[in-house]
Amino acid sequence: MSNLELPVLGQDDAAACCSPMVREPLGEEAAVELAKMFKALSDPVRLRLLSLIASHEGGEACVCDLTGPFDVSQPTISHHLKVLREAGLVGSERRGTWVYYWVLPAALAKLSSLLQAPAAIATVPAGGAR
Amino acid sequence: MSNLELPVLGQDDAAACCSPMVREPLGEEAAVELAKMFKALSDPVRLRLLSLIASHEGGEACVCDLTGPFDVSQPTISHHLKVLREAGLVGSERRGTWVYYWVLPAALAKLSSLLQAPAAIATVPAGGAR
Repeated sequence: MSNLELPVLGQDDAAACCSPMVREPLGEEAAVELAKMFKALSDPVRLRLLSLIASHEGGEACVCDLTGPFDVSQPTISHHLKVLREAGLVGSERRGTWVYYWVLPAALAKLSSLLQAPAAIATVPAGGAR
Repeated sequence: MSNLELPVLGQDDAAACCSPMVREPLGEEAAVELAKMFKALSDPVRLRLLSLIASHEGGEACVCDLTGPFDVSQPTISHHLKVLREAGLVGSERRGTWVYYWVLPAALAKLSSLLQAPAAIATVPAGGAR
């Protein structure tokens, strides 16, 4: 319906699975692709790296800004950044000595939409006993 | 700021990390907890199970509704459901012969908010070269 309004910033398949998963069952192919993106988010250091990049002034960060806050080695940081890039969550570019990273907003928006819990659904499951 | 409006449906810590990660760097503790939830989402079968539960009529699904669509064994499905439950993404209850599952909307909403890419941020990183 509203596919025409979806942002497509470097994510050709952004329109393929932006519908909230509470609205209709997720297809097999979409699930495989989305699981890879969630796997990239399943590590605390990667989550913090992504957040550091996303919240950095100007929306991008030099790799030189990204090592200070962590107790892990530079090669480990580089590995995590590679995982985020390969999952399509960040873009990168070398400029002179440093590599710069920025988040790919369409990818975040895709995952965010997928996990949306409409207000109508949010009030259904009473009890909450586990 | 708007903490008072946050839903708290069986998620005591829902208020702790609902701010979009693009707004401020994610803390270490929050990242550890969130990474566990994303890890639960990092498997295609679990993603589809969650979606099947969430989109099921009435907002909950009997385990008997959840095995048909998959090429995996019942014990495997049960294992995946346990992972989703332990990650705080679904609740469950036995009623007679069957166990019923429902999504915990606050958990989905927390992850969805975290990944929100504000329109302002979405227009910043020009180029998109990788």
